[in-house]
Amino acid sequence: MKAISILSGGLDSCVSTAVAINEGYEVIALHFNYFQRTQTREEKAFNDICDFYKLQRFCLDMDFFKTIGGSSLTDSTIDIPKDEISTSTPSTYVPFRNGVFYSIAASLAQRFDADAIFTGLVYEDASAYPDTSPDFVNKTQDFIQSASAKKIVLKTPLIQLRKKDIVLLAQKLNAPIHLSYSCYESNELACGRCESCLLRLKGFKEAGVKDLLSYQIPTN
Amino acid sequence: MKAISILSGGLDSCVSTAVAINEGYEVIALHFNYFQRTQTREEKAFNDICDFYKLQRFCLDMDFFKTIGGSSLTDSTIDIPKDEISTSTPSTYVPFRNGVFYSIAASLAQRFDADAIFTGLVYEDASAYPDTSPDFVNKTQDFIQSASAKKIVLKTPLIQLRKKDIVLLAQKLNAPIHLSYSCYESNELACGRCESCLLRLKGFKEAGVKDLLSYQIPTN
Repeated sequence: MKAISILSGGLDSCVSTAVAINEGYEVIALHFNYFQRTQTREEKAFNDICDFYKLQRFCLDMDFFKTIGGSSLTDSTIDIPKDEISTSTPSTYVPFRNGVFYSIAASLAQRFDADAIFTGLVYEDASAYPDTSPDFVNKTQDFIQSASAKKIVLKTPLIQLRKKDIVLLAQKLNAPIHLSYSCYESNELACGRCESCLLRLKGFKEAGVKDLLSYQIPTN
Repeated sequence: MKAISILSGGLDSCVSTAVAINEGYEVIALHFNYFQRTQTREEKAFNDICDFYKLQRFCLDMDFFKTIGGSSLTDSTIDIPKDEISTSTPSTYVPFRNGVFYSIAASLAQRFDADAIFTGLVYEDASAYPDTSPDFVNKTQDFIQSASAKKIVLKTPLIQLRKKDIVLLAQKLNAPIHLSYSCYESNELACGRCESCLLRLKGFKEAGVKDLLSYQIPTN
């Protein structure tokens, strides 16, 4: 069994990759560079996790997201929100980004005859983003299957989990989350204040696990 | 009303763009460069058609299709089939290419608040490709809609037409098909022998219309 695992280098995708490996899949890791602010640091985390598991990997350039624009993740003139967790679609939303990522994962899956695509999508923590709902996942599955001769399953092992449970699952699977990186803002030390850092820190705290990542600010 | 029109620069996308304009849409043209063999010539055709209609345009680089590989369109070590029209998936199939293209069009549609996406997809002529069926189009529509707050309609005005009828429709709409280019193989004169040239020539012949494009070989 072979799987494409979308691996940003963040906590969630690190753990969903660990799930794929634990389920016995031969994993091909897939990373996207799309001029997001933390591209360099994310790519390092991706490679560190791939090295840890000795994975075949693809790191693909999606420069066009910069051209399309409209997101604070890819446009440095728009501020990253700080010290808040969103209730409506935040400025960090990159238009239909997950749809594009899953399509490219499907291309790779067809090319390498894979049986599954793994993603670290989490619904509850990201419900302010339109492209994270269970309905979206179902529709993506149908979309991919309608143009694939072979069965390709889109697997979202974390979709119903809270960050706390993801940290606990990581411990159970010995996932190398110490190598993962989640910050939206900084390529050096994680800022500890963007939404992604806040959710990560909250998850570790609730799980009673120490986050070994270094932050710019005290986090205890 | 605003529409994203996917415009390769070929006959079909030229005519579907003409349909969008004729239906009153403000059109943003979208072209993909993906290291296909005829990238330079296709981009010229795209720009010529955009200039003709004075369209806003996006030309996006999809270099990753070269990395993914597996197609004679993007891998020059695999031959382009000659003098035959396919009955099974041909080597020119780029894995899930249309799925990726429509996802990126959806990203652009969300970004610019468009109401529709137009594509020159033709089922009958391309039924050997997995990503051209009416079922695939329906599933793509659902996929896009499931992550879009606004209604975005995927329009395929040519899907049930034969090449002959596309040429006749072009005449009716005064579409600038003399600026379009369809060859899979050559960046200079169209080869006249690849599947795409064969289908185009057949269409013009059956419609009783002269193809003003220059070919490497006599085509009458």
